[in-house]
Amino acid sequence: MFDPSSLTYDAAGLIPAIAQDAASGEVLMMAWMNADAVARTLETGRVTYWSRSRQAFWVKGERSGHVQALVEMRVDCDRDCLLVVVEQTGPACHTNRRSCFYTALRDGTEVEIMAPMA
Amino acid sequence: MFDPSSLTYDAAGLIPAIAQDAASGEVLMMAWMNADAVARTLETGRVTYWSRSRQAFWVKGERSGHVQALVEMRVDCDRDCLLVVVEQTGPACHTNRRSCFYTALRDGTEVEIMAPMA
Repeated sequence: MFDPSSLTYDAAGLIPAIAQDAASGEVLMMAWMNADAVARTLETGRVTYWSRSRQAFWVKGERSGHVQALVEMRVDCDRDCLLVVVEQTGPACHTNRRSCFYTALRDGTEVEIMAPMA
Repeated sequence: MFDPSSLTYDAAGLIPAIAQDAASGEVLMMAWMNADAVARTLETGRVTYWSRSRQAFWVKGERSGHVQALVEMRVDCDRDCLLVVVEQTGPACHTNRRSCFYTALRDGTEVEIMAPMA
């Protein structure tokens, strides 16, 4: 059985988790998990991060409704980064955009490539 | 003009950078950049990380030939994570697999979902 403690965490006990949309392949966001958040995500099927600012579990979409249903969790070769493939309800970003990566660098300047969702 | 110092770096001066294949949308790997690596990546069009283990610039593929040509760099809403959309030559992973995320958690066990490239 997979044991979350078998992953490599940083000095704060955290591992980065990249969320990717299962349908579109779009990279939605990156946030952090601790071992308990990894376990909760796997147990509940609801992607759960660790909020560094609030120092608390962050069940994605708990308040906004913009939940991430876990399709599959993947571990990288160094076991120090996670990829969570998700079904994203609504926008992933707190700015109401589908993805947090809505700013592109083009010709040396920042360009907004994604509008907030209606 | 975009200034790499406008990004938010961690206590070690680093920012995580997620590499995504421009053609397939596949998430290839996650590594770290410092402000100089961000600048070099943008200047050269060759994705350049900062190796935490070697404490040196890591021009991806410099030795292996498995280079990443930058298609576009994107910044997330918090300015503390980067997405580099790339044209990947050969495997991105040092295990010779296309992506570092070749281990999936399925039914509580680890499953290898990607074989090394020929």
